Amino acid sequence: MNKVIDFRTDPSKYRHWRVEYDGPVARLIMDVDEKGGLFEGYELKLNSYDLGVDIELADIVQRMRFEHPEVGAVVMQSGKDKVFCAGANIRMLGGAAHAHKVNFCKFTNETRNTYEAAGAESGQHYIAAVKGSCAGGGYELALACDEIYMTDDGSTSVALPEVPLLAVLPGTGGLTRVTDKRKVRRDLADVFCSIEEGVRGTRAKDWRLVDDVVANSKFDEFVTGRATEIAAKAKGGADLKGIELGALDRTFHDDGAVTYSLVEVEIDRKKAVATVTLSGPDEEAPVSLEQLHLQGDRNWMLRLARELDDAILHLRLNELEAGVIIFKTVGDAEKLAAHETFMFANRDNDWLCREICLYWKRVLKRIDMTSRSLVALVENGSCFTGVLAELLFAVDRSYMMEGDFEEDNRPVASIMLTDANFGPFPMSNDLTRLQTRFLGEPEKVDEAGDEKGALLEAFDAERLGLITFAYDDVDWDDEVRIFLEERASFSPDAMTGMEANLRFAGPETMETRIFGRLTAWQNWIFQRPNAVGETGALQRYGTGKRGEYDMRRV
Amino acid sequence: MNKVIDFRTDPSKYRHWRVEYDGPVARLIMDVDEKGGLFEGYELKLNSYDLGVDIELADIVQRMRFEHPEVGAVVMQSGKDKVFCAGANIRMLGGAAHAHKVNFCKFTNETRNTYEAAGAESGQHYIAAVKGSCAGGGYELALACDEIYMTDDGSTSVALPEVPLLAVLPGTGGLTRVTDKRKVRRDLADVFCSIEEGVRGTRAKDWRLVDDVVANSKFDEFVTGRATEIAAKAKGGADLKGIELGALDRTFHDDGAVTYSLVEVEIDRKKAVATVTLSGPDEEAPVSLEQLHLQGDRNWMLRLARELDDAILHLRLNELEAGVIIFKTVGDAEKLAAHETFMFANRDNDWLCREICLYWKRVLKRIDMTSRSLVALVENGSCFTGVLAELLFAVDRSYMMEGDFEEDNRPVASIMLTDANFGPFPMSNDLTRLQTRFLGEPEKVDEAGDEKGALLEAFDAERLGLITFAYDDVDWDDEVRIFLEERASFSPDAMTGMEANLRFAGPETMETRIFGRLTAWQNWIFQRPNAVGETGALQRYGTGKRGEYDMRRV
Repeated sequence: MNKVIDFRTDPSKYRHWRVEYDGPVARLIMDVDEKGGLFEGYELKLNSYDLGVDIELADIVQRMRFEHPEVGAVVMQSGKDKVFCAGANIRMLGGAAHAHKVNFCKFTNETRNTYEAAGAESGQHYIAAVKGSCAGGGYELALACDEIYMTDDGSTSVALPEVPLLAVLPGTGGLTRVTDKRKVRRDLADVFCSIEEGVRGTRAKDWRLVDDVVANSKFDEFVTGRATEIAAKAKGGADLKGIELGALDRTFHDDGAVTYSLVEVEIDRKKAVATVTLSGPDEEAPVSLEQLHLQGDRNWMLRLARELDDAILHLRLNELEAGVIIFKTVGDAEKLAAHETFMFANRDNDWLCREICLYWKRVLKRIDMTSRSLVALVENGSCFTGVLAELLFAVDRSYMMEGDFEEDNRPVASIMLTDANFGPFPMSNDLTRLQTRFLGEPEKVDEAGDEKGALLEAFDAERLGLITFAYDDVDWDDEVRIFLEERASFSPDAMTGMEANLRFAGPETMETRIFGRLTAWQNWIFQRPNAVGETGALQRYGTGKRGEYDMRRV
Repeated sequence: MNKVIDFRTDPSKYRHWRVEYDGPVARLIMDVDEKGGLFEGYELKLNSYDLGVDIELADIVQRMRFEHPEVGAVVMQSGKDKVFCAGANIRMLGGAAHAHKVNFCKFTNETRNTYEAAGAESGQHYIAAVKGSCAGGGYELALACDEIYMTDDGSTSVALPEVPLLAVLPGTGGLTRVTDKRKVRRDLADVFCSIEEGVRGTRAKDWRLVDDVVANSKFDEFVTGRATEIAAKAKGGADLKGIELGALDRTFHDDGAVTYSLVEVEIDRKKAVATVTLSGPDEEAPVSLEQLHLQGDRNWMLRLARELDDAILHLRLNELEAGVIIFKTVGDAEKLAAHETFMFANRDNDWLCREICLYWKRVLKRIDMTSRSLVALVENGSCFTGVLAELLFAVDRSYMMEGDFEEDNRPVASIMLTDANFGPFPMSNDLTRLQTRFLGEPEKVDEAGDEKGALLEAFDAERLGLITFAYDDVDWDDEVRIFLEERASFSPDAMTGMEANLRFAGPETMETRIFGRLTAWQNWIFQRPNAVGETGALQRYGTGKRGEYDMRRV
C-alpha cells in the first residue's frame, strides 16, 4: 500500500455515500461502490468500508457543519436492501500492514467522534435508521449516532461479530460505547459480542442496544417524524446559510514536501523528521460578521485549520518513517490575537465563528492523537500565540531560543497566551492543555492566565513552565540536533506507547478510553498470530476454514 | 518455563528480602540473591528482580498486615551498596514467553497496588529510602510508596530507562504514576523517560520525581525520623498483636487438580476449563472478637480468601490453556451470612475484621483482572451468598438452575445478597460490582438492595438482573455445554481484549489505567519485533549492540 492517500474529497467525487438535503433534515445514505476500494485486492461488498469510504464520510460530516448549518438532524441509513453496513472490509484488513490497520482505526474513530459530538456542539443530531444487517463497524457507525432505531422486519439485526468471526475486537469504539454510552449490562454485552448473527427485535431494545424497534410498515414514517422533531428542537435554524469549503491550495513536491497557502511540510527522510511550519494571518481580522461570512473558507483561521488538518493526516498515513514532527510558526502575534478575539467574541451568536472554533478543537485533538514525537521549536520570528501557542502544550517537548542569536535579525522569540489557552480547545480528557500540563500545580494555570496578552520571552516562558527548555545561541543548534538524533535512535513502538501514556493525565472520558484502552488492546490483537498470522482468522476469512489459534491465554 | 510456580512462601524461605521489625516502624530490605532466580538462564544482579522476588515481596506485604498490625510505617530500602534496585531482570524478560511477561507484570502490579493502598486502608505507610541507582522497575517500586526520599550522594538517581535502553515501557505503573500520582509535567516526564542515566539531586525534587533530597550524612536519620513521625500518626497502634498466617492446606494432584480445605480446582484440559468450587463455612461464625483472634488463620472467611487467592494465581501462571474458569459454590447461606455479619459489624473497631474484609477486596479484584473467561454456575445446593454472590458480578456470565431437576435432591438453587454486595468490596473503578453492572439502570441497585437476606430463586434473580441466564432441567446441560464449547472455539487473545474492555465500565482510577491503558500498550510492545525479535532490544541487551528497529511509526 504505497500510493499516497489523499484525505481531500468533495461531493462531486463521492462513490459511496449520497446526501439528500431537505431543510432541517438531511439523509446520509451509505451505498458503497463495490469496485471503489482504495486499494486492489478486495471488493467492498455489503456496504463494507475501507479508508476511502470513511474519508468521504468525514468530508460529509465536515461539510454538514460548514455548508449546511440549517440541518438539525441527520438520518444515517443504507442505500442497499437487506444490509445496513457489514463493517470494515475484512479482506482489506487481512491485506493491510499493521500500521495501516492502526491508522485506519484511528481515523474512523475520529470521524465517529466528530459526528457524535455534533449534536451537543452544533445542534446536528445523527440518527441511525437500521434496516438490514448492521454488523461490526456497521453497528459502530450506529453507536456513534445520538439515537438508533431498528425495524422489526424479522431479518434486521445489530451485531458485533468481530470476536467470534475474526478474532479481533469491535475496535472502532464498539466495546466502549456498548458499556459506557449505551450502558449495556456487562454480561449481556459479553453475550452480544459473542453472537455472530447478532440480536434483533425487542431483545435489542431490552438490552439497550437500540433505542426502539419499530414495525417495518411504519419505520420510515417514524424515523422521519423523529428526525423532524429533533431538528425542530435543535439550535441553529432553517434560515442559516452555509459557506462553501473549496479545494485546498496544496502542492505535493518531489522531495516529499507539501505546501499550502499557510502551511509548509518539509520531510527530512534521513533524519526521520517532518517540519510543519504554520503561518500567522496574512490579512487583518474581519471587522464584521458580514465580512467573515463573505470570506468563508478564505478566512485565515479556517484556512489554517483545514490545511493543518490535511497535513497531519498526510504525515500519519503517507510518511510512516517521519518519527518526529517539528512545529514551527511565523507571523505577527498581535494580528493573530485580533483574529481570535473576533472569533471568541462571536462564537456564541454566530454559527460560523462557533464552527471555526470547534474545528480547531478537533484539529488540536487530532494532533494530540498523532503517534509521532511532537516537538515545537520556538525560534526568533515565530508566532506561538493563542491557538498556535496551544501547540506548545500539545507537543511532547518544546525548545525556545533565548537571548541574541548572531546574524539573526528576526524579532526575538516570544510566546503570547490568549483566551485560546484557557477554555475553548479542551483535550479529549475534557481539560485544557494547560490544566493537564499543570495537574500537579494547578496554581500555575492562573499564573499563566495573568500573563495573557504579554509577549513572553524565554526567561518568562521557562519561569511559567510553558516550555521545556530554553537555549541560547551557543547551545541551541547542538541541543536540538542531539534531541532529534536521540529520538531517531529509539524504537518507534516504545515511543508510541510512552507518548500515549504521558499525554493524557487526569480524568478519562469515553474518548480517551477508546483511544487508550480499547485501541491499545486492539493493536495488541492486530499483532497476534491468532488474528493476523497465516492461519489466523483474518487470513482465513472467507476460505470456509476457521482460524487456527494458539489456545494459551495471555 | 514449565515448572509449577508456587505463590506460597514464608519468611523461613526468603532469599531476596529481609524485614526488620522495630515496634511501629519496619524496614523492608531488598537484597536479592543473584543465584536465586526462579528459572535458569539469568542472574539477578544489581537487585534486579523476577517473579520469585516479587512473590516474596507480596508475602511480606500480606504478613505485614496480618502478622504485624503494630507497624505504621515501612521503610523500603536496599541491602546493597550503590544500587537501590535495577528493576525487572532483562535477561529473564528476554527469555520469557509472552504470557509469562504479561502475567509477571500483572502480579507485580497487583503487589504494588497492595502496598500503595496499605497507607490509606490499614495505616501502614510505605516510604522509599533511595540510596544508589533506582532504575526502571526499581523506581516503580518506589513510585508505589507513599513517599520517596533520595540521598544526594552524587551518584544516587531515579530513572525510567526502559524506553531508550530496552524499547519497552515502564509498565509496572511507572508511566501512569509519573503523570497521575506524582503529577510530573508531561514534557518533563518525556525527558525523564528518555534519559538512560536518570535524574538526581534537586532536579529530581523540582520535577516532582521524589519528595525530598537529603544530604547523605543525614539521610538515615531523616528517614528514620520521618518513618517514626508517620507511624505515630497512623491508625492502629503498638499494642496490636498479629495473627500468624500458617501454611495452606493444599495438595496438587496428578490430573492437575488442586485441593485445599475449602477450595477445589479441577482441570479439564480437553475442554480447556478449570472449575473452582468454593465451600461455605464449615464452622459457626465467631461469637466474639476474642474467639476470632484465637481462630486466626483458621477463620473461614480468611482461610477461603487465602485459598482462593492462591488458586487464581496458580491458574493464571500454571494453567495457561484453561481459558474458562467456572465458579461453583456449596454450603449454607445463613451460616455464611452470619460470618459476614460478624465481620462487617466489627471491621471499624477490630483490625483483624478490617484486614479480612480488605483482603477479600483484593482477592475479588484479582479475579476481575484475571484474563480468562469467567462464568458462575448457580446450581442446586450452591451458596452464592454475600461475598460469594459477589462472584456472580465479577464473572463474564452466570447461569442458574431453574425449577426441579430430576434425581437432584439438593436444595433448589438460590442467591442471597447481603451487605457484602453494596459497599465493602469495590472494584478497581471504585464502584461496587452491582453499580458497575447497573450503570444504565442505577435504580436496579436499590431494587436488589431491597432483597437483602432473601433466598432468591432463578425467577427472581433473573427479574432483578442478577444472573445472565436461567435454564431448567431440559435445557441446562446443553446450554452450559454449548457455551463452554463456543468459548473454547474463540481466539484467546480476542477474549482477553474483549473482557478487559467489558468488565470495567464507568469511572477510571489510576488502577484501571495501569491495568487498562498502560498494560495494553506494554503488551502490544511486548509483541513487537523491535522489543522481542531476534535483533530486538531485549535480546540484544548486554551484547554491546543496540536493537535493530523497524523505523515505521504505528
